[in-house]
Amino acid sequence: MADSPNCDLQSLSPLQLFERVTEQGEKVRALKAGKAPKDEIDAAVRMLLSLKLSYKTTTGQDYQAGLPPKDLVLINNGTTKEEDEDLVDPWNVQTSNAKGVDYDKLIVRFGSSKIDTDLINRIERATGQKPHHFLRRGIFFSHRDMDQVLDAYENKKPFYLYTGRGPSSQAMHVGHLIPFLFTKWLQEVFDVPLVIQLTDDEKYLWKDMTIEKAYEYARENAKDIIACGFDVNKTFIFSDLDYLGTSAGFYKNIVKVQKHVTFNQVKGIFGFTDSDCIGKISFPAIQAAPSFSSSFPQIFNGKENIQCLIPCAIDQDPYFRMTRDVAPRIGQPKPALLHSVFFPALQGAQTKMSASDPNSSIFLTDTPKQIKTKINKHAFSGGRDTIEEHRKYGGNCDVDVSFMYLKFFLEDDDRLEQLKQAYTSGELLTGELKKVLIETMQPLVAAHQERRKQVTDEIVKQFMTPRKLAFDF
Amino acid sequence: MADSPNCDLQSLSPLQLFERVTEQGEKVRALKAGKAPKDEIDAAVRMLLSLKLSYKTTTGQDYQAGLPPKDLVLINNGTTKEEDEDLVDPWNVQTSNAKGVDYDKLIVRFGSSKIDTDLINRIERATGQKPHHFLRRGIFFSHRDMDQVLDAYENKKPFYLYTGRGPSSQAMHVGHLIPFLFTKWLQEVFDVPLVIQLTDDEKYLWKDMTIEKAYEYARENAKDIIACGFDVNKTFIFSDLDYLGTSAGFYKNIVKVQKHVTFNQVKGIFGFTDSDCIGKISFPAIQAAPSFSSSFPQIFNGKENIQCLIPCAIDQDPYFRMTRDVAPRIGQPKPALLHSVFFPALQGAQTKMSASDPNSSIFLTDTPKQIKTKINKHAFSGGRDTIEEHRKYGGNCDVDVSFMYLKFFLEDDDRLEQLKQAYTSGELLTGELKKVLIETMQPLVAAHQERRKQVTDEIVKQFMTPRKLAFDF
Repeated sequence: MADSPNCDLQSLSPLQLFERVTEQGEKVRALKAGKAPKDEIDAAVRMLLSLKLSYKTTTGQDYQAGLPPKDLVLINNGTTKEEDEDLVDPWNVQTSNAKGVDYDKLIVRFGSSKIDTDLINRIERATGQKPHHFLRRGIFFSHRDMDQVLDAYENKKPFYLYTGRGPSSQAMHVGHLIPFLFTKWLQEVFDVPLVIQLTDDEKYLWKDMTIEKAYEYARENAKDIIACGFDVNKTFIFSDLDYLGTSAGFYKNIVKVQKHVTFNQVKGIFGFTDSDCIGKISFPAIQAAPSFSSSFPQIFNGKENIQCLIPCAIDQDPYFRMTRDVAPRIGQPKPALLHSVFFPALQGAQTKMSASDPNSSIFLTDTPKQIKTKINKHAFSGGRDTIEEHRKYGGNCDVDVSFMYLKFFLEDDDRLEQLKQAYTSGELLTGELKKVLIETMQPLVAAHQERRKQVTDEIVKQFMTPRKLAFDF
Repeated sequence: MADSPNCDLQSLSPLQLFERVTEQGEKVRALKAGKAPKDEIDAAVRMLLSLKLSYKTTTGQDYQAGLPPKDLVLINNGTTKEEDEDLVDPWNVQTSNAKGVDYDKLIVRFGSSKIDTDLINRIERATGQKPHHFLRRGIFFSHRDMDQVLDAYENKKPFYLYTGRGPSSQAMHVGHLIPFLFTKWLQEVFDVPLVIQLTDDEKYLWKDMTIEKAYEYARENAKDIIACGFDVNKTFIFSDLDYLGTSAGFYKNIVKVQKHVTFNQVKGIFGFTDSDCIGKISFPAIQAAPSFSSSFPQIFNGKENIQCLIPCAIDQDPYFRMTRDVAPRIGQPKPALLHSVFFPALQGAQTKMSASDPNSSIFLTDTPKQIKTKINKHAFSGGRDTIEEHRKYGGNCDVDVSFMYLKFFLEDDDRLEQLKQAYTSGELLTGELKKVLIETMQPLVAAHQERRKQVTDEIVKQFMTPRKLAFDF
């Protein structure tokens, strides 16, 4: 290796530079420990200083051992997570706070941007539509490069939406609908194509499940997604197990991403270990690839440069931090992101819900009676111990799960505000708040079930067939 | 973990068991080092002994730290390679011996079986054909389960052939033809389907090469392969970049293999490190998957249980040791193998040839004059320093590259034996032996070029289109 490393370092990503500095530091230590000749140690130290300088020039940060660059901060292996920080990655969400994860801290740690009033107003101006209540209420709270998407949109440049779901079971709960309900709204107000990835291969790799079962869940989940009301002429839903075998463009992008991400990187980002199977290790590339329009030649006419916007829960961000790191190195635009908060379990906001615990949420298959029982029995209350105390001191909406659910599902802003004030003042009792939630959820779930019944296998097939959509590229 | 591990260990492969013993050994050491309570240490030791017993029951060998089970011996990371052993893996072949790699030792180290006279005679009986000179002369020298293939063949059970090539450049040399010439003979005498994998994705991942270039090389190499005279009705040639995007069966098998192989395993087998890209780490599954007939539903009618036989150079064996380890765990038959020796470089048998050094071999594009010059100038001679000495002591066929090449390409056994005797006795001079080689290679290469000219893009397309072949399954 030459003494001056700057010449070829410009093409490296911040994370690659970080790794080079770390490696060089280890080399210097090894040389010193091995009592190598002085000139050899000096040369290695010069190289180390030069690498640190490149790192600072590229990232604007000083190199700190064990602290990777901000855009790709380690979140899973514990080396950078402080004692009191929340754990958030695609497989775990843990917090000790009853209000849920501290999202402002998460924005700082992940290096994303807050969705502020300015941005919401700008979306309103650009689309001429009242912003969705998920935006107004901070349910979608963080973003990456949404202003660039709006710049492009205002200049009549096209973009597309990409979201997805890991089909881990047949049963979906109401929280699973959040990204889809929001994506549907985005699609309608911007009038853009949408691709929805069902990662049945991921579920096969992670769970004790056959390939056939994972694919069956993908098709069943597709029915619930379609029942949200997507337009078949503007939406392509795909199972990885299916689509990978029908699209040369998709596999080419996967292998491009796989060439530009090392095991060290996925270890840092996702916490993989040497005992993990090679399928898990290479999977992040499969979730990354739909961020590039050339993965869908049938929709985008083979064009490589169409901007992608990804609405997803914040726990999926590690995949897309990785994708954004790789994108420029394979000549592709970085996908933009809109992040949602987590949907709380009925038992409280400390954890993400689990599809495997039927009492942790309201499922899309629940009867009105089941909904009523679950809410009355399991919804964590922010109320006081006795009616007297409640009347006197009022309830706490910040930890009350019924109120949290209403923030997601009660569209009427005035009504929500009234409920909040009444509950906080003690005028409204927990049982009464729960009743409002029951009366909101029962018709919502019933209507979903009605729409899902209309989704025939033939309709699923239409959505899942690779084809041109109602847009020209 | 329970005290008795035997219940769930029966489903583990020898390598997985090996890893469990190693992990448990580390655990015991850590407990002792950390001065853990005695009963905790005792429990861990009991578990270790129990795991070692399971290992011995499964493999028939005693557990030895650092020495994985024979069928999956580490060959690349140096932990088991003795000082004087040859280095053989898919990317390196190194030996200090001018006669080339010690193949008898390799058979012992890899745990394969020698192709002996009995097996050659059995192939002759089964096919009613004189065995190919590659078999008669020990060029294909090692196998795995070839007797099972013959058992099945004699019982009228079908099998298929699978071989391949990594298209690292446009230019192929005569050594690259060895597996194809032999596979063609096998296909003719057994009358079975053949699939040929062009790993353009591998070359993209390993080399500084665009995807487009790798695919172009795959198509160019396909022309040279087709020019060997394969029957389009019985042969399917595929590029990974192409076929992965057209076959759901292929990707499903890849992901199945990827679920059952850990990073630890590919690290042990292929010497991958944490700095390798995730594409390399997961690639072995892509070379493994064509060993399973369900990767080709169009040929085998979706059948999963058709036996596969893989003729290849011995350096590809690590891929298929891995495949054979996984096969029973995903309900597939283990592929059988026939291994060839390496084709020597003109400069001597110490190394495998390189397609990037034009003087290291005779290329399929060489003119008669180039062939003459290369052989005269570069072919390592086993002759003596002076004509007088040569006449007196004779030449050494064991290290003479011209003689080695004639073993590959001169089909006439009697003539070859005559040449050997004459050269060894000193009657034949090096220049005369080289002349025989020149006169053998010139028409052979010219005829190849003539056949290659007939291979149009249309013919390539026919070979590379997924379709039913002239066999019913």
